[in-house]
Amino acid sequence: MVRQKDIAKELNISRTTVARAFAGKNISEETREKVFEVAKRMGYVHNSTASILSLKTNKIVYCFIIATIDEGYGSQMENGIKEVMRIWNGYNFELKVVFTDITREGNQCRRQMEQFEEAVRDARVDGVIFSALSRENLQRVQEYCRVQDIPLMTLDLICKDTSLCHIGPSYYNLGALSASYLSEIMNREGKVLTLFYDDGYELSKKRMEGFEDRIKEFSGIEHLCIHVAGIDCDTYREALKRVIPEFQPDAVYAPYKMDNIILALRQLGDHKDYRMISNGINGEIERYLYEGVITGIVTARPFHLGAVAANNFFKYFYRGSEMLREEIDVGLNIYMRENYERYHNIF
Amino acid sequence: MVRQKDIAKELNISRTTVARAFAGKNISEETREKVFEVAKRMGYVHNSTASILSLKTNKIVYCFIIATIDEGYGSQMENGIKEVMRIWNGYNFELKVVFTDITREGNQCRRQMEQFEEAVRDARVDGVIFSALSRENLQRVQEYCRVQDIPLMTLDLICKDTSLCHIGPSYYNLGALSASYLSEIMNREGKVLTLFYDDGYELSKKRMEGFEDRIKEFSGIEHLCIHVAGIDCDTYREALKRVIPEFQPDAVYAPYKMDNIILALRQLGDHKDYRMISNGINGEIERYLYEGVITGIVTARPFHLGAVAANNFFKYFYRGSEMLREEIDVGLNIYMRENYERYHNIF
Repeated sequence: MVRQKDIAKELNISRTTVARAFAGKNISEETREKVFEVAKRMGYVHNSTASILSLKTNKIVYCFIIATIDEGYGSQMENGIKEVMRIWNGYNFELKVVFTDITREGNQCRRQMEQFEEAVRDARVDGVIFSALSRENLQRVQEYCRVQDIPLMTLDLICKDTSLCHIGPSYYNLGALSASYLSEIMNREGKVLTLFYDDGYELSKKRMEGFEDRIKEFSGIEHLCIHVAGIDCDTYREALKRVIPEFQPDAVYAPYKMDNIILALRQLGDHKDYRMISNGINGEIERYLYEGVITGIVTARPFHLGAVAANNFFKYFYRGSEMLREEIDVGLNIYMRENYERYHNIF
Repeated sequence: MVRQKDIAKELNISRTTVARAFAGKNISEETREKVFEVAKRMGYVHNSTASILSLKTNKIVYCFIIATIDEGYGSQMENGIKEVMRIWNGYNFELKVVFTDITREGNQCRRQMEQFEEAVRDARVDGVIFSALSRENLQRVQEYCRVQDIPLMTLDLICKDTSLCHIGPSYYNLGALSASYLSEIMNREGKVLTLFYDDGYELSKKRMEGFEDRIKEFSGIEHLCIHVAGIDCDTYREALKRVIPEFQPDAVYAPYKMDNIILALRQLGDHKDYRMISNGINGEIERYLYEGVITGIVTARPFHLGAVAANNFFKYFYRGSEMLREEIDVGLNIYMRENYERYHNIF
């Protein structure tokens, strides 16, 4: 039986290069063609699971996911990860999801590091998917993985100064698309009130920055952004009670918990038909979308994000692909009643 | 070495059922668990490419794709198909794309059958992906594949009365989403002029039906639909010249060649800021999107459609999955300047 190393020898290249040719990644078209030509001539049959047979143990990837105030975010990402496990369920490929719930009390940033340390202490960890809650957490995990030689992939962008693979949407674009879409459904004129809650994370700041930059481009739109201390219904209600009579907006935007804003407006007896869009998805928001209260949901497909991250580890372990070292933008979608589906199949 | 048939014997089930368990398709959770339990106990290592090793020849799937007046449609679908070939490039899995260009002169419906017959006469065909141009073409291909025992998958919906797998968007929903989105960006009031060209295909009728049904739900929107004999700039211009002075629309919609409408309006010296969306994608439309002339593109992701179809054949040949016998809706997206990307990666 002809093996990859035989092809490598024939071409005077490394075995890894041959593997890359079959994985179709990080290889020049020229080299790939040479490898295929020789493989064909030598009668090589590519068996991409051959590597599994030689594996004594299974591969376990730990995924540290943030459960945010966007309720659907974490669970959709988990579903994307599980979908990939389902696709490759004949392989010894396991993905363990660990949530850090930042809606809970206490120092969740420290909690995330504890969870990470528990995992690497108690179990074998062959790969790490990490949504860092701080730059420091990212650095510590990065350092640990470097020393232990564990492949690492980061989800969502915390800082740019890294050589790691980032999978995530552009939060700036998410804000910009939200502003653009909202302005368009206002027919490019009127007043927008934004209720901004600063959760302290860079992602949220980026999103708000994108929103503000884009909304300025619409000369017929007047934008007022006020800061709120929380995203519960009571906090929203007090803010709306104070601002609405004076500003008289036509549209209301908030990155988080739009459903609480709708509830607050109802409690205030305000039945004006505000234009509203949402970035987060939960059961209530879903219902408001179908009822036409919310026009659309602008979102970053966390399902896709989880699936892409998980699948890259699969390709790394079982297909000889290189770990990704680039930024992968999973794209943004606008969902209206007619094209809304909660989860998306990949294949 | 433990084989699938050993597991089958142990459980008194068929080998196909065991294969399905590993493919994770068309199997009850209960049976799947039983299979996995026994596989684990017997020390079976799933090798999903084992089937390839026993294959003497490669697998060739012919894809009969329609090149439509939506210029991007066929080429994006081809890209989706090629992406899947790239992913599995270590396998002897070939996908050949044959276009039937319905924008050309002559009976393209008959041409499609000639192309099909040429293919099955001159080459070995292991699978067929078919976008039928008529009910009759579909029936003839279906009959041929049934007799020759060639697996068949149809792309886009021509008729519902079939037991075949249909992969495609819902064209009715595409029309409905277009109407909804356009109404919303008009802030739910004003006049919409639709220029409808009947190309004789059911898909186009469905789309227009969806558009008309949905637009009626917006009480502030007045809709006028006129039929045009072509989709070239001259035909559009003559229609617009006749209708605009009298109807005075705020928005213009046409399922095909929105770029020709924009050109026609400019030729008429009409510089009103009409609200416009497009369903098709081509270079011009792309440019109008970035310039803000067209607000958004509502589309069915033909890339995804091609990829899903191609990958299902891969799973059938190399993973022991059953051929799909259901309708697969690939979903619809709204693209604005901020989230527009021409092609979408799957993984």
